[in-house]
Amino acid sequence: MRLRSIPLSQIQVVDPFWSRYQRALVELGLPAQFRQIVETGRLRNFERAAAGERGDFDGYRFNDSDVYKWIEACAYVLAKYPSETLQRDVLHAIDLIAEAQMPDGYLNTYFQLMHPEMRWRNLIAMHEMYCAGHLIEAGVAVLECLGDRKLLDVGIKFADHIASIFGPGKRRGACGHQEIELALIKLSDATGDPKYRELARWMIEDRGQRPSYFEKEFADTEAIALCPAAADLLLHKGQYSGEYLQDHLPIREHSDVVGHAVRAMYFYIAAAQLEPDAELRDALSRTWKSVTERRMYITGGIGPSGDNEGFTTDYDLPNLNAYAETCAAVGLTLWGSALLNLTGNSEYADVMERAIYNGALAGISLDTTHYFYANPLESRGGNARVPWFGCACCPPNIARLIGSIGRYAASISEEGLWIHIPFGMELDLNFSGVPVRVQIDSGYPFESKVVVSVEPASPIEFEIRFRIPDWADNVETEIPGLEAEAEYSDGYICARKLWKPGDVAKFDIEMRPRWISADPRVRDNLGRSAMTLGPLVYAAEETDLGFAPQLFAADTAAEPEVIQSSKLEGASMIRVAGERIFETFPDQLYAETQALEYEEAVATLIPYYAWCNRGSTSMQVWIRT
Amino acid sequence: MRLRSIPLSQIQVVDPFWSRYQRALVELGLPAQFRQIVETGRLRNFERAAAGERGDFDGYRFNDSDVYKWIEACAYVLAKYPSETLQRDVLHAIDLIAEAQMPDGYLNTYFQLMHPEMRWRNLIAMHEMYCAGHLIEAGVAVLECLGDRKLLDVGIKFADHIASIFGPGKRRGACGHQEIELALIKLSDATGDPKYRELARWMIEDRGQRPSYFEKEFADTEAIALCPAAADLLLHKGQYSGEYLQDHLPIREHSDVVGHAVRAMYFYIAAAQLEPDAELRDALSRTWKSVTERRMYITGGIGPSGDNEGFTTDYDLPNLNAYAETCAAVGLTLWGSALLNLTGNSEYADVMERAIYNGALAGISLDTTHYFYANPLESRGGNARVPWFGCACCPPNIARLIGSIGRYAASISEEGLWIHIPFGMELDLNFSGVPVRVQIDSGYPFESKVVVSVEPASPIEFEIRFRIPDWADNVETEIPGLEAEAEYSDGYICARKLWKPGDVAKFDIEMRPRWISADPRVRDNLGRSAMTLGPLVYAAEETDLGFAPQLFAADTAAEPEVIQSSKLEGASMIRVAGERIFETFPDQLYAETQALEYEEAVATLIPYYAWCNRGSTSMQVWIRT
Repeated sequence: MRLRSIPLSQIQVVDPFWSRYQRALVELGLPAQFRQIVETGRLRNFERAAAGERGDFDGYRFNDSDVYKWIEACAYVLAKYPSETLQRDVLHAIDLIAEAQMPDGYLNTYFQLMHPEMRWRNLIAMHEMYCAGHLIEAGVAVLECLGDRKLLDVGIKFADHIASIFGPGKRRGACGHQEIELALIKLSDATGDPKYRELARWMIEDRGQRPSYFEKEFADTEAIALCPAAADLLLHKGQYSGEYLQDHLPIREHSDVVGHAVRAMYFYIAAAQLEPDAELRDALSRTWKSVTERRMYITGGIGPSGDNEGFTTDYDLPNLNAYAETCAAVGLTLWGSALLNLTGNSEYADVMERAIYNGALAGISLDTTHYFYANPLESRGGNARVPWFGCACCPPNIARLIGSIGRYAASISEEGLWIHIPFGMELDLNFSGVPVRVQIDSGYPFESKVVVSVEPASPIEFEIRFRIPDWADNVETEIPGLEAEAEYSDGYICARKLWKPGDVAKFDIEMRPRWISADPRVRDNLGRSAMTLGPLVYAAEETDLGFAPQLFAADTAAEPEVIQSSKLEGASMIRVAGERIFETFPDQLYAETQALEYEEAVATLIPYYAWCNRGSTSMQVWIRT
Repeated sequence: MRLRSIPLSQIQVVDPFWSRYQRALVELGLPAQFRQIVETGRLRNFERAAAGERGDFDGYRFNDSDVYKWIEACAYVLAKYPSETLQRDVLHAIDLIAEAQMPDGYLNTYFQLMHPEMRWRNLIAMHEMYCAGHLIEAGVAVLECLGDRKLLDVGIKFADHIASIFGPGKRRGACGHQEIELALIKLSDATGDPKYRELARWMIEDRGQRPSYFEKEFADTEAIALCPAAADLLLHKGQYSGEYLQDHLPIREHSDVVGHAVRAMYFYIAAAQLEPDAELRDALSRTWKSVTERRMYITGGIGPSGDNEGFTTDYDLPNLNAYAETCAAVGLTLWGSALLNLTGNSEYADVMERAIYNGALAGISLDTTHYFYANPLESRGGNARVPWFGCACCPPNIARLIGSIGRYAASISEEGLWIHIPFGMELDLNFSGVPVRVQIDSGYPFESKVVVSVEPASPIEFEIRFRIPDWADNVETEIPGLEAEAEYSDGYICARKLWKPGDVAKFDIEMRPRWISADPRVRDNLGRSAMTLGPLVYAAEETDLGFAPQLFAADTAAEPEVIQSSKLEGASMIRVAGERIFETFPDQLYAETQALEYEEAVATLIPYYAWCNRGSTSMQVWIRT
């Protein structure tokens, strides 16, 4: 990779916006998730497996993964906000997981309790390696953030078990739901052992080849029957095209993003981290463009359809029924980050930031205890955040993104420090052996001014690359001692100079309310605009308007007014002028158009991520103009 | 009933609009349907059953009904346009049906071939009485129009068999899909025997009572398993609420229309024909209002959701994914006709006319050979008419509506002749023993002038009641010898006088292009209007515009222009002014609103019923304004 993420131990997030979320997760969100994990039997599955029981399993076959993701999220936030009770729960869960592991390294409570003889026979639907991947990710996080390697050792043992069965010269196969690939790469990074990365590479390149190893499984009807939904689809309806799980083509031939959105994202995240050659980079670039230029909501949400939890066709982006799963936006964030580190091109940071602050963050309530699985861009009052889901992938996923948010804000490279998202952080870096402490202060995402204070142990030359967001026409800079005009590269300001103790660089990113239109091929948004401010997409909610926002039409020529508010944890609101239709109408369903009554009206918009925090209500992102 | 339909033998449709459709059905549509019936094994099922075979059945369990409905449609049009080959095919089918009937009167080729021991054990899903109902309707039509009672005798024998099993003091039960009820009423009218009507009354009143006879069937798991989809829903998911098949409440307690739209319509058609008492009339009136004031498309299409092929919630009327099944619009037509005959109130005729000329007629191509099952009000190019369906209820259903269209245009009562829809007809009537020939001439639905020529054998006093459509502010009348100002009653002009040979009454219904809005609670149509002319709803199709109609926004203040055209079988078109958005856009999915380019544009609209007759293309009824 050209850029490297900065280890979380060297990043301290001091930004009020994210610190508030992280603290809430420690105090409220993650303890509440643990109660759900306990009450839904997810922990009991491990207890039973540890006790060698048989025949009883609670919930979905992939429920182990929720425990792993919860541990990962806890590890991130506990490193910063210690909590005895939460740490005790985490360590207890780790103990149970370790006890449940079989002597040969296998670990999956569903199979251990229900079908021990059926291991690895239904890769297409049974998620064994998917769960293994989240185990490994959690193990790496616990070691990195809490200094405890017990869970990582469990993960390594499982990974070695997988590597003893699958790989070149052994069995073909990978998981129907990608995840193991990116986890194996993480494991190589954590252990220094390249064999895991090579196994991931082989899995990634082998997927989509013909004959497909997934298709071979159809003959094993006993194993396929373990998942009735898949059996119905694969055997009875014969509808397997491979697209759902990206098995339609070898990755090097991918162009349009297809199928299940989270599977696709996890797949491409791993591929981007493989040090891809030119051909694979081209495939990733084509597929990235297909997502971000034709199949992505303005929020960074992706995967419009609930039918396949995934992608449909170009420009098909319905608002009311948008699926736009929280996990898919988290996945797009991680893929953007991986491509950003691969290339140093700000276009990936633009999308990453869009997904973080909108499509992903909307998936969690302000107090971090209630969640959306789907993230529509319009509501007619029927949506509500809930504390948990039967398939509970999203709650711990958004929690671990928030817990590790610093990872996506900055990178380092040979050139120096890259600031992708300039929220408040303290960074402990080292350039050419010289320790450098960098502090970033800002009111991001609501305020435009960013102050970067640099404290090298001794003067040292390096570059600070500061991203110019796609939503800013201009970034004003004030960098002491930088004689020459600032240089620009791939969307970054390149401030190369000899940095001395006490140096302070100032950036002011032009931030104004902007009415945005969609490409006219997005039919759903014709005649509509969405309001944005900086990285944030705004929404109209009935709570603020006093009437359903669908009745409102904005005057995009009028000057929008940014309002500082104490509501919604201090989010900036935006007041826009327009007119509303009244709900008075003749006593019939259809009448001549002149029967409608209009009145001038003002609508106060809130950030999309904050919607549905004051009860179920009507909401709209794309406002009629 | 206050009004009576006029026997089809006394109505000759001479109207060019409908005559063209009827002739096309004889020459093209119905022969093509017969080929489908043969090729898909629907006729072979009868052959096999007649031969006493076992174990082989083609298609869906209710496929017999498609043959019956096709025969019914053929009977209507053959009475007017004789065709040797079509008549031969009809008589051949009738012979096979009669041969397939079992000695005890039972007739259902699915059960006879596959599960003879399972008769009447799964009423909820297996459609035995549904098929019986269509058999009876076809038998009545063949006798009425072709003078052959062989099929009716088969129907009577089956009806008697059903009556020997079900009824007061016998088994409880009716069909999960209503149809038998209205057919039994028709059979009483045809035979003069009231027992069938009383059986229908009992079935209608018993439905929705608790305990439900459908719920009792769940215990018969062997029978329920005959329909895997129902078994999954009823047994595994436990989701039975009764709403899907109107078993949620006794009919007298119905208020909101719920569930499967066609089932609901067929149910209420029968109930309206029962000479209902005040309580039942109130229930029908409430339910009618719930459909027509809160749950009906402007086209008269109903049942927005494909999930249940039916109703959802008030004002939930999405355009792009509208289900609005052709059969449901046919059902609404028949229900409106029944309530119209019950009450003599034009509001029912208004809805009936709306459904006929728009939601129902859109289901068949201009040449009568291709069909829609679902009738969306917007298309993005993905819709296509097809020659047939696996579940082929719609093609023969719209054909039998067109074949019998005269039945819905006029009625008689003690007062005289009611003209509901004034298209060209010749009526042979009789008032107080005096034969009266009435001829109606008009260019309906495109032209406003109607001429009614009255030729009584001798002068006779009676009323001609002429409907004032809901879409007309005014009807000018010119009735020779009618001294007093015309009187009005429930939406009809009442022209009572001594009619003499050669009398000619003239009516001119105000007909102008009107932009219509939906009640603002229909969120999907906010900021949009639909164009209408007379009874017709108009649509914008890419074929005429040269660009996708979604890009167009109409100027509703500009004067629309009606254009006579030779296209689409001479349908009037309407030219409206507005502006279009160009599909040029910056090379990104989202950009500032001022990036959009507009230009003044003109759009030529066509009648909705005629859309998608020139290939798959984008279409829109509700146009941005």
